Amino acid sequence: MAKIGFIGLGNMGGPMAENLLKAGHDVTVFDLNTEAVKNLEGLGARSASNLQTLAQDKEFIVTMLPASQHVKNVYLSDEGLIHTLSAECVVIDSSTIDAATAKLVAQQLGERGVQFVDAPVSGGVGGAKAGTLTFIVGGEQKTFSAVEPILSAMGKNIFHAGDHGAGQVAKICNNMLLSILMVGTSEALQMAIDNGLDPKVMSDIMLKSSGRNWTLELYNPCPGVMDNVPSSNQYQGGFMVDLMKKDLGLAMETATHSSSSTPMGALAQSLYTLHSQHGYGKQDFSSIFTMFENKK
Amino acid sequence: MAKIGFIGLGNMGGPMAENLLKAGHDVTVFDLNTEAVKNLEGLGARSASNLQTLAQDKEFIVTMLPASQHVKNVYLSDEGLIHTLSAECVVIDSSTIDAATAKLVAQQLGERGVQFVDAPVSGGVGGAKAGTLTFIVGGEQKTFSAVEPILSAMGKNIFHAGDHGAGQVAKICNNMLLSILMVGTSEALQMAIDNGLDPKVMSDIMLKSSGRNWTLELYNPCPGVMDNVPSSNQYQGGFMVDLMKKDLGLAMETATHSSSSTPMGALAQSLYTLHSQHGYGKQDFSSIFTMFENKK
Amino acid sequence: MAKIGFIGLGNMGGPMAENLLKAGHDVTVFDLNTEAVKNLEGLGARSASNLQTLAQDKEFIVTMLPASQHVKNVYLSDEGLIHTLSAECVVIDSSTIDAATAKLVAQQLGERGVQFVDAPVSGGVGGAKAGTLTFIVGGEQKTFSAVEPILSAMGKNIFHAGDHGAGQVAKICNNMLLSILMVGTSEALQMAIDNGLDPKVMSDIMLKSSGRNWTLELYNPCPGVMDNVPSSNQYQGGFMVDLMKKDLGLAMETATHSSSSTPMGALAQSLYTLHSQHGYGKQDFSSIFTMFENKK
Amino acid sequence: MAKIGFIGLGNMGGPMAENLLKAGHDVTVFDLNTEAVKNLEGLGARSASNLQTLAQDKEFIVTMLPASQHVKNVYLSDEGLIHTLSAECVVIDSSTIDAATAKLVAQQLGERGVQFVDAPVSGGVGGAKAGTLTFIVGGEQKTFSAVEPILSAMGKNIFHAGDHGAGQVAKICNNMLLSILMVGTSEALQMAIDNGLDPKVMSDIMLKSSGRNWTLELYNPCPGVMDNVPSSNQYQGGFMVDLMKKDLGLAMETATHSSSSTPMGALAQSLYTLHSQHGYGKQDFSSIFTMFENKK
Repeated sequence: MAKIGFIGLGNMGGPMAENLLKAGHDVTVFDLNTEAVKNLEGLGARSASNLQTLAQDKEFIVTMLPASQHVKNVYLSDEGLIHTLSAECVVIDSSTIDAATAKLVAQQLGERGVQFVDAPVSGGVGGAKAGTLTFIVGGEQKTFSAVEPILSAMGKNIFHAGDHGAGQVAKICNNMLLSILMVGTSEALQMAIDNGLDPKVMSDIMLKSSGRNWTLELYNPCPGVMDNVPSSNQYQGGFMVDLMKKDLGLAMETATHSSSSTPMGALAQSLYTLHSQHGYGKQDFSSIFTMFENKK
Repeated sequence: MAKIGFIGLGNMGGPMAENLLKAGHDVTVFDLNTEAVKNLEGLGARSASNLQTLAQDKEFIVTMLPASQHVKNVYLSDEGLIHTLSAECVVIDSSTIDAATAKLVAQQLGERGVQFVDAPVSGGVGGAKAGTLTFIVGGEQKTFSAVEPILSAMGKNIFHAGDHGAGQVAKICNNMLLSILMVGTSEALQMAIDNGLDPKVMSDIMLKSSGRNWTLELYNPCPGVMDNVPSSNQYQGGFMVDLMKKDLGLAMETATHSSSSTPMGALAQSLYTLHSQHGYGKQDFSSIFTMFENKK
Repeated sequence: MAKIGFIGLGNMGGPMAENLLKAGHDVTVFDLNTEAVKNLEGLGARSASNLQTLAQDKEFIVTMLPASQHVKNVYLSDEGLIHTLSAECVVIDSSTIDAATAKLVAQQLGERGVQFVDAPVSGGVGGAKAGTLTFIVGGEQKTFSAVEPILSAMGKNIFHAGDHGAGQVAKICNNMLLSILMVGTSEALQMAIDNGLDPKVMSDIMLKSSGRNWTLELYNPCPGVMDNVPSSNQYQGGFMVDLMKKDLGLAMETATHSSSSTPMGALAQSLYTLHSQHGYGKQDFSSIFTMFENKK
Repeated sequence: MAKIGFIGLGNMGGPMAENLLKAGHDVTVFDLNTEAVKNLEGLGARSASNLQTLAQDKEFIVTMLPASQHVKNVYLSDEGLIHTLSAECVVIDSSTIDAATAKLVAQQLGERGVQFVDAPVSGGVGGAKAGTLTFIVGGEQKTFSAVEPILSAMGKNIFHAGDHGAGQVAKICNNMLLSILMVGTSEALQMAIDNGLDPKVMSDIMLKSSGRNWTLELYNPCPGVMDNVPSSNQYQGGFMVDLMKKDLGLAMETATHSSSSTPMGALAQSLYTLHSQHGYGKQDFSSIFTMFENKK
């Protein structure tokens, strides 16, 4: 079993670290939140008082942090791990950040001989707890092979998307498309309703036709069509509008930098931003359906 | 077996009538194209020299016509079938037209005691030949039960979408969503390519993630990812851009009449119209992918 | 002075007929609303009990009706004026309707030797009362010359847009562009506000820069920037959201028929429809500004 | 007259520095391009061999640089002016960059007691040569008063948009709106043409109606309507598509950071990016009109 340093014990990182412990790994954790650290200690983790001691004698470092600047701080700042990590250590960053930052960290660690993968996840808090996350990995083939057994303790599907940064790009492309599926499905269902059709019947027809997509299969946005989805629970739980808005911001940043034209993605960003501004930022992202309802 | 009058022997109607014959029905055909009529006679059909004689003593009438005005002419004009049909006859219109016309014909035939369903199809010429079309039916439950055995000779999935017009509405909602899936998937794949990813790898990842949709499953728009789809055959065959443009025109007309806001559907219409204007109207609709390619 | 038959005495038509009277014309009016008829009689108009008597011995007929079907009824139905009008009479339709209907009426009247122009207006109820409407006229040059003096009694700017239907097309193109100016200006002002700028300062800068447009000059959508505009009067008065929605419906119908790609116009229609569905249909169309405000 | 250090002698910076000289100022220039430096020396400028010597004893520093990273380098890097400038010196940055960078430079120079304004321009190379640029200034009132006389030597309209960064925000809001005006006007003109109208007549009508905007007044995108504009010169000269694309990239970055929903601006970015990808990046931005032409 591997010696792993884990940084970032939030809603996602906490259960991920727990699953590493369950798999028998030797895990040392770090977080500014002492409560979260104590919780993991109770489950068998060691803890470190600072990043430098955490990094000592580890085979793998895993980070799960909120945004690019935190990742830069942990790795590249004056107190960053770049100054301590040995070439034997392999670094896995599972934060969702922009690809440019992922490439920068990969390159700078690489200059010190340290291998790095960006490995953002999908599957949410539920997937983190159940150990069924999807990991989308960017990095060299040999590093991918090295990290795959570690990621398997926390997830079910492990994809190798390409070189450094490709994990972030692939995740953001997928989530951009997801937002388009959700808005498009909502429009189609509401237009059917406005013309007197039953949304359940309309959903069944599209599921067996060329309109079929993930949202109709597993996450119907219209209340009452499916049980056990956010739309049938007042849009509570699930994946928040504000998180989709964050991902669409990353997608548009990526599109601008690569001169990609993404009219539907850009429209989705505008609509999710509007929805958030109208006060629905904390609801599940399928609540965009309600934007199209007739409220007169 | 039933006595059926069939009107409209085009690319779709011809094979549909043939499948009715194969199922053992007694089919009388009518079309202004005498070649098409002769062809069906060779397969065992009777023919009628005009609409009035065709309509005599039939249990079912099936029409497969290009647009609303043809349907109005056949049923409601001064020489229309409305003046001849008996109350024992059940009418099936499989043309793709606007829901308002479908409702009008249903109502006016209904006043004479004649039952009507709108039953537009999806599945294309291939489905028509193979007898695997999908029928989306609008009309009363008892009429649906009456026509189902007839439609089964020509198709595989027979849906009852709701009351008169609902078949047309459901088809158009599905096709509007399909156009959104196709554009959105094209944007996401091209953005991945612009950032150095392999479109096959990206497609595989999205197929197993929340971006999954019908176009990724069966109709990938990026050349070389899938065999036996139009994108790997220079976008020949399949479902033409100009037919998608026609359906999106019907969708926007429907949305305007029901005061439905469909920003993604409207954007899809603008992009497909642009694509057609740029000279790609006769290509398969997955060729919208090439609009996003970097041509510099 | 001319003998004029005037049909349609609503909010617009009433004051228009009044201005014809003030200019000394001999005006006979017709409307199903007897109150409106009496009002005009009090101002010196004659009245007619039906369309046929109204049409007798007139040099000009003016219609100002809500929608296409009313125009068709008045001119082309079994009781329509087409059966009574003499070739000496010139017909002016100032309703805002689709160009196809305008062309149809022009053609059918033309076959009887009756000249027709479509002459939709802009300028609203205020312009109708003040006699400062803009008329956008479609028809032959000689007919335009004939109607110009009559229109001058009701309006200030009289444009000859082209042949039959061109008046309707030009009006709808202008109003589609107006909706784009209004949404675009609202987005730009709100983005400036969100970044700490004063909307009055931002408006002044854009007025003197390349962002200048009619809405900034005369109709600023941000409350408090300009006096005497709807935005400074809780968006009361002015041009209703639901009327802009109607015009955008006509614009999209026109675009679909001519295979024109209008992505911004289509987006404007979606946004105005959304705004109406959210309950703002009776407010002035500049209230679209409030859609972009941060409501959290 | 003032002692001014001028950094960045490109197409814009060169003529701007020349106009400062013409106004009698004592100008010292710096650029890596020695040709450009010699040219200015020929017109009476002094030159400096590096940034440090350039900065000595200056009352004003003006920078005109391509992008954010150049501005950061000149002011904030290890060799940056921040380490040399005295508190008597006032800094003017006329580059078009993101507001966040402008604020950062303002803040860091401010901590050393150095006043800063962001002062991006509009008016293009022609305006730079003629001394008729528009300056949109962000910074404190007293700094604005100090720089106004200097800017007057290079421009005609000098606006005070607000605090640090407000110049950049205001310019980017204006240019985003300009792109919307250009696309919207192009759509409306092309739809009129598709329906048989003359674009010159349509332009005249909209100029006197509520569709009026800067592009119709001074920059009609349809060839042949106006003389002496890029559309009548094969879209050569003027403001390049790729520069509009850059500004729209900055606009979308700004919108994302301030959580502003800008659906029309986002659509304009997608369309200009598409236009550039299709090979028109070096044409004038009014060439977006040709995207909507029927090319079949």
